[in-house]
Amino acid sequence: MSDAPIIRKLSLIGLGLLGSSIAHAARRSGQVGTIHGFDASTEHRRIAAEINLVDQVAQTAREAVADADLVILCTPHGALKSLAAEICPHLMQGAILSDVGSVKSAVVTDLSPFVPAHAHLIPGHPIAGTEQSGPRAGFATLFDNRWCILTPPENADKQAVDTLTRFWQALGSNVELMDARHHDLVLAITSHLPHLIAYNIVGTAADLETVTQSEVIKYSAGGFRDFTRIAASDPTMWRDVFLNNREAVLEMLGRFTEDLISLQRAIRWGEGDTLFDLFTRTRAIRRSIIDAGQDSSAPDFGRRPKAD
Amino acid sequence: MSDAPIIRKLSLIGLGLLGSSIAHAARRSGQVGTIHGFDASTEHRRIAAEINLVDQVAQTAREAVADADLVILCTPHGALKSLAAEICPHLMQGAILSDVGSVKSAVVTDLSPFVPAHAHLIPGHPIAGTEQSGPRAGFATLFDNRWCILTPPENADKQAVDTLTRFWQALGSNVELMDARHHDLVLAITSHLPHLIAYNIVGTAADLETVTQSEVIKYSAGGFRDFTRIAASDPTMWRDVFLNNREAVLEMLGRFTEDLISLQRAIRWGEGDTLFDLFTRTRAIRRSIIDAGQDSSAPDFGRRPKAD
Repeated sequence: MSDAPIIRKLSLIGLGLLGSSIAHAARRSGQVGTIHGFDASTEHRRIAAEINLVDQVAQTAREAVADADLVILCTPHGALKSLAAEICPHLMQGAILSDVGSVKSAVVTDLSPFVPAHAHLIPGHPIAGTEQSGPRAGFATLFDNRWCILTPPENADKQAVDTLTRFWQALGSNVELMDARHHDLVLAITSHLPHLIAYNIVGTAADLETVTQSEVIKYSAGGFRDFTRIAASDPTMWRDVFLNNREAVLEMLGRFTEDLISLQRAIRWGEGDTLFDLFTRTRAIRRSIIDAGQDSSAPDFGRRPKAD
Repeated sequence: MSDAPIIRKLSLIGLGLLGSSIAHAARRSGQVGTIHGFDASTEHRRIAAEINLVDQVAQTAREAVADADLVILCTPHGALKSLAAEICPHLMQGAILSDVGSVKSAVVTDLSPFVPAHAHLIPGHPIAGTEQSGPRAGFATLFDNRWCILTPPENADKQAVDTLTRFWQALGSNVELMDARHHDLVLAITSHLPHLIAYNIVGTAADLETVTQSEVIKYSAGGFRDFTRIAASDPTMWRDVFLNNREAVLEMLGRFTEDLISLQRAIRWGEGDTLFDLFTRTRAIRRSIIDAGQDSSAPDFGRRPKAD
């Protein structure tokens, strides 16, 4: 049985960027038997069928999960509860139920009540994505060499955790197990807060009276445009992240603001050394990220504008 | 004389990213006679000579500006005053003195007292750069299709402004004339504030006790790494920007913080609509930036990690 696939039937609920990328990567892996998919949007289902994204596009979530040994929910967090209520009664014996969301404690709280004893809830979070959305946005290499964090509950079935680990490794990821609460704290600083302040500065810039919006756009190459890229991420998904990781985000935001106010004071009083020390310290962290293979050292600000 | 170069002798004081890119772009243009360069760093002068960056590497700034019809100061703002004191007595009749700094009002205040009546001070600011520094970082296409803002004083010599305009156009830039104070306000929001908050969040992340620095680095692909790229910019240059554009930066920072606190409140009270509305509004601005050719629409979060 060494050539049996890791997953016999994979069911993807939600065929946006993540769901469609999993479909591509799963096919590439050769480790998944058949892939069934469902999306609440008729348009997404139509596109998925048109581009042959999965082996079968189901007309209901319930239909998609029948007989699946792995079901992955790839929707914004807000949709999870009602989806769980619909599909959980139809999960087969031994099925693994997972997700890809950026918040993990709330997944356990929200889904556990629905999961039958014969199935295994093992939340997951691939740290990968782009600022684009929809079934056409996915691609097979999205997870290559990226981390995927699994947050199995304490009493989780070892074999199910092992299967899900091997599945994500087959998709190209490096897998890490972590406590859900700690995951939420780590992601609050590495992902949620960066998105929040990017959204915020773009909003601030849009509301100015002394600088026109067309000037903001025209001269955005000085740094601002990088924030707009992050602030172009999916609004529903991100609303749900902030509503469901409230505590950790507020904690990190409090620290950020405290530091910013002290920086503001340094600017007001002309304390150049305070500024210089911080700006030097942050350079070292950048170097570590490049050394860890988490970003490229190619100078990206010099990227070419769109030819037109 | 239609085939006379726009500039007969160009003198670049400071051979970092900007100075070296100007040298490359000026050569490419075929519109500049000879290029002389000086850098306060012996090491930079050595590298400039080694890579044949300019026609002649001078041993002093004073020597570099002799007979130059265009002198461009490409140093952090803090170095401008003492440089001006040194070179201004040696500017030739009709010479244009310019710079490339990100703050413009302070340039006029700091340099005007030194500029002789027979020379023309016309500050400039190419909105282009990368997060890298030094004489090896420059490249000829840096200014292509980018804006270069000139902020001539009210009484500026029209012909000198015209010459400097044609020079930057020959380097590939689109040139815009602007009042210095307005420039500083525009750049405060499109460049200075983005850098400040990027530096700040990287500092906040480095100081956490509940999340380790190695976790921050490991899971930085969720948004944080984009901020570290901006926060890797030159510390001296950026210290000087904040010290010399204090008023405009504090104004923009005040608005940013006000907006952020109100967002914080929306998260605390679970006001999903407030979040969703902002996150939708910011998407539209991103689209405008792409439409204006100021960034590419290629999904950049999916960029490949360094192969190693």
